[in-house]
Amino acid sequence: MSESEIADVDAYMHAMGERARGASRVLARATTAQKNRALLAMASALDEARDALETANRRDLEAGRDNGLAEALLDRLALTPARIDTMIEGLRQVAALSDPVGEIRDMRYLPSGLQVGKMRVALGVVGIVYESRPNVTVDAASLCLKSGNATILRGGSEAIHSNRAIAACIRQGLRVAELDDACVQVVATTDRAAVGALIAMPEFVDVIVPRGGKGLIERISRDARVPVIKHLDGICHVYVDQAADPAKAVAIADNAKTQRYSPCNAMETLLVHAEAAPFVLPELADIYRRKGVEMRACERTRAWIADAIAVTEEDWHSEYLAPIVAIRVVDTLEEAITHINTYGSHHTDAIVTENLTDARRFLTEVDSSSVMVNASTRFADGFEYGLGAEIGISTDKLHARGPVGLEGLTSEKYIVYGDGHVRS
Amino acid sequence: MSESEIADVDAYMHAMGERARGASRVLARATTAQKNRALLAMASALDEARDALETANRRDLEAGRDNGLAEALLDRLALTPARIDTMIEGLRQVAALSDPVGEIRDMRYLPSGLQVGKMRVALGVVGIVYESRPNVTVDAASLCLKSGNATILRGGSEAIHSNRAIAACIRQGLRVAELDDACVQVVATTDRAAVGALIAMPEFVDVIVPRGGKGLIERISRDARVPVIKHLDGICHVYVDQAADPAKAVAIADNAKTQRYSPCNAMETLLVHAEAAPFVLPELADIYRRKGVEMRACERTRAWIADAIAVTEEDWHSEYLAPIVAIRVVDTLEEAITHINTYGSHHTDAIVTENLTDARRFLTEVDSSSVMVNASTRFADGFEYGLGAEIGISTDKLHARGPVGLEGLTSEKYIVYGDGHVRS
Repeated sequence: MSESEIADVDAYMHAMGERARGASRVLARATTAQKNRALLAMASALDEARDALETANRRDLEAGRDNGLAEALLDRLALTPARIDTMIEGLRQVAALSDPVGEIRDMRYLPSGLQVGKMRVALGVVGIVYESRPNVTVDAASLCLKSGNATILRGGSEAIHSNRAIAACIRQGLRVAELDDACVQVVATTDRAAVGALIAMPEFVDVIVPRGGKGLIERISRDARVPVIKHLDGICHVYVDQAADPAKAVAIADNAKTQRYSPCNAMETLLVHAEAAPFVLPELADIYRRKGVEMRACERTRAWIADAIAVTEEDWHSEYLAPIVAIRVVDTLEEAITHINTYGSHHTDAIVTENLTDARRFLTEVDSSSVMVNASTRFADGFEYGLGAEIGISTDKLHARGPVGLEGLTSEKYIVYGDGHVRS
Repeated sequence: MSESEIADVDAYMHAMGERARGASRVLARATTAQKNRALLAMASALDEARDALETANRRDLEAGRDNGLAEALLDRLALTPARIDTMIEGLRQVAALSDPVGEIRDMRYLPSGLQVGKMRVALGVVGIVYESRPNVTVDAASLCLKSGNATILRGGSEAIHSNRAIAACIRQGLRVAELDDACVQVVATTDRAAVGALIAMPEFVDVIVPRGGKGLIERISRDARVPVIKHLDGICHVYVDQAADPAKAVAIADNAKTQRYSPCNAMETLLVHAEAAPFVLPELADIYRRKGVEMRACERTRAWIADAIAVTEEDWHSEYLAPIVAIRVVDTLEEAITHINTYGSHHTDAIVTENLTDARRFLTEVDSSSVMVNASTRFADGFEYGLGAEIGISTDKLHARGPVGLEGLTSEKYIVYGDGHVRS
């Protein structure tokens, strides 16, 4: 359906939801082989459609330039040959992952003679709302398909032609595997009302995964009538313990801040034990200065870094996503943990220490979705964790925490075997 | 604090939330031994406070009678010696359950040399909103405490004196184990605004578990600003397959409907394969007639049960919780599965069959939180599943499905060990 034909967006989304629900019932019982066949056929279809993809993408880029889109956004939007390669490779990797659907655990006999256990099942229909990167279309579709979920994808309006061209390849892959087109649907209108409709159809959509800026995610979390898998902020900490190896501490605090500034798992606040400060802060300050990182520090830190500017309470709450770091000296491990649990965003926090007891305590008491020992917070993602891919990162407490891969797109139901059992 | 002192309910609930959040940080790292000591001390405190409990309960019962409370509600409200025994026994059982907090699974080395796995952790603060049964105060508090969660309990106004007397015993148990009073707090006001405040404090409360009638649960689900673990309906089915053993089918369809009418896991709709109908329906109809169960049946069923009244579309959507059963004859297993997935409430559904392939297909394709083979739907609860206890039953797709015990009150965070690892 082309955009001009979509007069009634609510009716259009309703029909899409109904088709997705129907397809999800079939997909939930599709064999692993059939799902993999579809994924590999999508990869081939993308490979064969390179010209069409680049033509469609050129239309988006031209429109973007005409509309004065920022250079960074145009860069995200671009479907270069290398990015098409990455999408194709991603599909092949997801095909190679083991299928979580149908896993049975903890089957056991109970005193009644009943045998009870849990079976892993698809969630049903997943709605994905994302911004400019067209590669999300393929990443999200492939993870949802492999985990047995039907998907409705709603990308950014600036990528509409690219997304439609990718959608055509996805449909071709589904057809090769004899799966219903409605297993993966791409919203064909740029009308913003489509998002509002998508997130308010609990009868057809089981979960929404928003991917994009904080504004988008806040809006969706507020208005959604179905559960949302998300994270809002990545206020990540590195704590350099009294028992830290100074070389590891410097390397990790440098990497966590400067390897890239914009990812949500980059460090924003550095906490340093008072006894470690002299062995770590001067050297780190040199590195940060050289790399142009602005340092905002507490009074005690400034004894070691004279040129740091005074930190404010607001800094502890800030996700800079920029070459800025907040630094605080603490007297105890407990003070560091309290700081993280108070100001952090439950995303990713790391301790640098050689002390076993301090490491165990930090792992247990820091209430974040990823807690690390002697590693850079930048490792918090699905690829690095061996999930094969990720659909997003969750900082919520229920369901999945941290990078969400195939398992996070499933849940478990109880299965029970009896032999004519009745309750007395 | 007595009720008369609580002028500003929002401020009162805010303070309670803040204290709960603080206590949850301590409770999350309490040892299993300390939590068990508290549970056993609560059991002793209840045993010693029998007189006080009965006096407080008498006040509630008298007020209930004065206010014209229905006999069924007065019955639920009564704290008989046997019910006090059950509460005490429940506390001892929860103390005996194994502690899920801190369990580590799937630790493995990744190509980067990082070691990544998952650790089970408490959710944080659990808010429980329930109606007349005062025993829920103890059941909920004990499960939350054992799983390392702080709890805020808001019982029905008609049970306020009983709940306060129970709360005193809970506090005594906490003190014996040197745990903060704020680990378990009972809302001391009957002002309904307290519920509104409790479900709208995401900064202090991580999840709400409503226990009570459908009206309560709908209201809370609609207004809550934190996740809700719940089920709205229990529209449970028994499907008698072509390959069913007729004796098992009759026993299960009888038990699932008539063993008790009001529980959410009682059967509401019976589906029978056309070839099984002659071997099952006449005998079942005799039983239902004898027990006074009204039969509402499709045209084809009425060939076997002439006195059944005609079923309507609305019946398939109905949770009777009463001596009424809807009956439909189907031609295929697929028709039965489609009926259940269309009209059911994703609670509990059972197949009666001797055929392996039919059983496997039903288990895989029925999208309910409990799916059973050759067993009565009445078995769907935490005690029967060996969870030791349950805080409720969830029919949602995310997080916990089915009876929710200790594990459903926890989630998993990622833990990562490196040795100075940085990302390149």
